[in-house]
Amino acid sequence: MIFKTGDRFVETFLVSTKTYSDFIQLFKDNNPLHTNEQFAISKGFKGMVMHGNILNGFLSYFIGERLPDKNVIIHSQEIQFKNPVYLNDELKFTAIISGIYESVNAIEFKYDFKNADSKTVAKGKILIGLLT
Amino acid sequence: MIFKTGDRFVETFLVSTKTYSDFIQLFKDNNPLHTNEQFAISKGFKGMVMHGNILNGFLSYFIGERLPDKNVIIHSQEIQFKNPVYLNDELKFTAIISGIYESVNAIEFKYDFKNADSKTVAKGKILIGLLT
Repeated sequence: MIFKTGDRFVETFLVSTKTYSDFIQLFKDNNPLHTNEQFAISKGFKGMVMHGNILNGFLSYFIGERLPDKNVIIHSQEIQFKNPVYLNDELKFTAIISGIYESVNAIEFKYDFKNADSKTVAKGKILIGLLT
Repeated sequence: MIFKTGDRFVETFLVSTKTYSDFIQLFKDNNPLHTNEQFAISKGFKGMVMHGNILNGFLSYFIGERLPDKNVIIHSQEIQFKNPVYLNDELKFTAIISGIYESVNAIEFKYDFKNADSKTVAKGKILIGLLT
């Protein structure tokens, strides 16, 4: 087993204008919280709130591309959104292996995304399988 | 409260070639399970397996655009992947309100995605908040 409990992975993800606008183009979520600055401010935010599911796209990249083994598949994911993400936020992503289940070839990660103020914007768990 | 426990919402989502290739362009997840037909078949699948997080993008659209109230924000999501999704699969999405928490303005949905064979490909829960 190439993975060990406690293994730690770190990435940086930028919620760029291109990421934001391409996500909207792809999934057509134009909710005013994401697209109308004045609306978002009227709801108590500093500006337009980025789609939480952009972060789930970053998780796809992390699992699919950044692990030492490419023979992987996602079984389940959880994400809790704790604080808003704004346009051009650079997020520090940390994932730690929290469990290894050798009998079923599965690995659990706990992860979080933190913004430049070191505030956790989202956290959760991912369970993956190793393809044999 | 415009929402009631048991309210049911139905959508159809197509995992088109464009959705698939735009997702890869956006998030750069070129894992061979998603991009190499022979690799996917060697792992026991019928063909390239679509990224599970495409379904999370569909959830973004559902919550942001298809509810009777646009004043919403996602608090948390869970998704379990039960069966593979393939290119050009048309998925039937059903969400049911499973809980209303008026004191904290939150609503819980249980949802699933089924393929053309009526197999559940993914299911989970979403907790949203109503913005006041």
